[in-house]
Amino acid sequence: MKKIYLDYAATTPVDPEVLEAMKPYFSQKFGNASSLHEWGREASKALEDSREKIAELIKVEPGEICFTSGGTESNNIAIKGVAFANKEKGKHIITSSIEHHAVLNVCKWLESQGFEVTYLPVDKDGLVDPTDLEKAIRDDTILVSIMHANNEIGTIQDLRELSRITHEKGVYFHTDAVQSFGKIPINLEFVDLMSVSGHKIYGPKGAGFLYVREGVKITPLFHGGGHERGLRSSTENIPGIVGLAKAAEISFEKMEEESKREEKLRDELIKKVLEIPDSWLNGHAEKRLPNNANFGFDFIEGEALVMLLDEKGVAASTGSACSSHELKPSHVLTAVGLPPEKAHGSLRITIGRHTKQEDIEYTERAIKESVENLRKLS
Amino acid sequence: MKKIYLDYAATTPVDPEVLEAMKPYFSQKFGNASSLHEWGREASKALEDSREKIAELIKVEPGEICFTSGGTESNNIAIKGVAFANKEKGKHIITSSIEHHAVLNVCKWLESQGFEVTYLPVDKDGLVDPTDLEKAIRDDTILVSIMHANNEIGTIQDLRELSRITHEKGVYFHTDAVQSFGKIPINLEFVDLMSVSGHKIYGPKGAGFLYVREGVKITPLFHGGGHERGLRSSTENIPGIVGLAKAAEISFEKMEEESKREEKLRDELIKKVLEIPDSWLNGHAEKRLPNNANFGFDFIEGEALVMLLDEKGVAASTGSACSSHELKPSHVLTAVGLPPEKAHGSLRITIGRHTKQEDIEYTERAIKESVENLRKLS
Repeated sequence: MKKIYLDYAATTPVDPEVLEAMKPYFSQKFGNASSLHEWGREASKALEDSREKIAELIKVEPGEICFTSGGTESNNIAIKGVAFANKEKGKHIITSSIEHHAVLNVCKWLESQGFEVTYLPVDKDGLVDPTDLEKAIRDDTILVSIMHANNEIGTIQDLRELSRITHEKGVYFHTDAVQSFGKIPINLEFVDLMSVSGHKIYGPKGAGFLYVREGVKITPLFHGGGHERGLRSSTENIPGIVGLAKAAEISFEKMEEESKREEKLRDELIKKVLEIPDSWLNGHAEKRLPNNANFGFDFIEGEALVMLLDEKGVAASTGSACSSHELKPSHVLTAVGLPPEKAHGSLRITIGRHTKQEDIEYTERAIKESVENLRKLS
Repeated sequence: MKKIYLDYAATTPVDPEVLEAMKPYFSQKFGNASSLHEWGREASKALEDSREKIAELIKVEPGEICFTSGGTESNNIAIKGVAFANKEKGKHIITSSIEHHAVLNVCKWLESQGFEVTYLPVDKDGLVDPTDLEKAIRDDTILVSIMHANNEIGTIQDLRELSRITHEKGVYFHTDAVQSFGKIPINLEFVDLMSVSGHKIYGPKGAGFLYVREGVKITPLFHGGGHERGLRSSTENIPGIVGLAKAAEISFEKMEEESKREEKLRDELIKKVLEIPDSWLNGHAEKRLPNNANFGFDFIEGEALVMLLDEKGVAASTGSACSSHELKPSHVLTAVGLPPEKAHGSLRITIGRHTKQEDIEYTERAIKESVENLRKLS
């Protein structure tokens, strides 16, 4: 049977070159980067080389890169860290209604701690209106957190404009770039904090980073030995960090060519799938991640569709992997205006480096068949 | 030149068998454990198998194991999590004065958040007196956190007695077992929370766990997708978790035999090194980790000694790796009653699985020569 993985937004396989780069750091160059001896210096060099490599890719200073365990931790440090460090200035935070749970649930928790949060609406394509943001910023606003590209529907925000407006008002701007980093260019000119995860870019799970612009007032989430300039105590995960840096490097090298290739496959898939009656595309037609297609089908449960596709060897999802066990309709699809019954019929296909033309052709047929079968049953 | 690693308390090389166990999960079985499809189920199975394996080793329920990024995170979740979840009951916490910074600095931060912390003293061997603990527990005490074995001087506390007293008073007991887990038996009968790190037991960096007894009232540190029963949101680091479980398994298998072997090497080292005039052993003579020796030398800077040993190919430390760049004397050595000038002259040697008889013999000579040379210079 065919086995086709089309859930690259959930996670990606570690690139063999990335694993090769990591290998020496497990059992040979295994030192603790804080140790004073040879093993420690070797680890510390790997750590700082990785930091420099990433800083160079995104054109920031090495000291502005804080290594973390991944996207969720980066978002937690960024939002809670800025909130608690700046609460004397104000307790108002702005975010969007389509953020990942690692942002939304942090904001909800902050509400329980006396902060006030504005959740900006999005239009039917999933875009935040910069005018809405401008109006929402108040004197006591301390942070705006808006994701770069959405994990479910792939919509890409106008990050430069949103961060520029925020910056102009003297408010910190954070972006969850977990889905966009390494896939599309990111303009950090007015961005103060950015979350990135390794396992979304063919790097290891358990490694990510938070970009924190020099001078941002932020308090740590982990207290301890004072690693990462005091922002993230914990013995550094050297193999993970080396792998993350290598994965970032490869992603940036391949970005232009690979995004064109994936976009072509995606567009072909979209064209074919939309031939199915009572189907539609969720998210923006053009301003979307090159690898993301999110479909809606009337009279169908997305979960049943994912399971039928799984039986045919195609791995897809209804939306966010993290919420795949929830019964509620996607908060993203609800926010773009879909009624619950339509929000339940979603299918997310995310393409990756290993996706071939024939995989897409097989998947088109598998989706058509599965939708037909499910509709016959219902 | 010889290259002898004797800093196993700082970190350990990943066991080749552990790395073998991890390998399939990087690039082949790479799924997100939350995904509904085949790749997801495969990852989820690896996750739950690892959880069961660890639970079995320490005789607890699988649902009581929460995977984290390591010791520091486990300590932060445990202490902050219990503190914030139980602040209605009280705001008093008890710990010892010789804890790792990942406990002490969490407690200090909690003091800034309105909590009150009692730091129990230790005797000259580094032991907490159970009577002191008993007296310190108040009606508003919500948590006692005392490490099992000290990372610098290796002293092993009477965990059962300390946790029993705490338990009897209806207060939660947490232990930082980062240095003892897998090296000596741990009795969890009255322990509610325990922190463990992978990279101290020949497992991977970036992986650890927190044991949380069923029913303990605790609040998460990361908010997000609700992983690990809501206590630790973040895509699970499957290769790391698989490696951690394998490392724990091997450590438990080898524990009895290996601890005897290391103890013998350690005792020989202690005997020879104490032949040096004006030298002494820090920590308890018997109640100490089988692999730990911590020496004091008059008229010498520990850091200079570590550097001279490094030149001779021996990797050792003055104490905690995390504090190796600090200029202050060790808080542990100060707590056991050493005056600053004596606390500055410490050398920690920690033995491990790869340490051979000849390494110890070489190291004895290297220490003697280095101490002599440094004393001639001073």
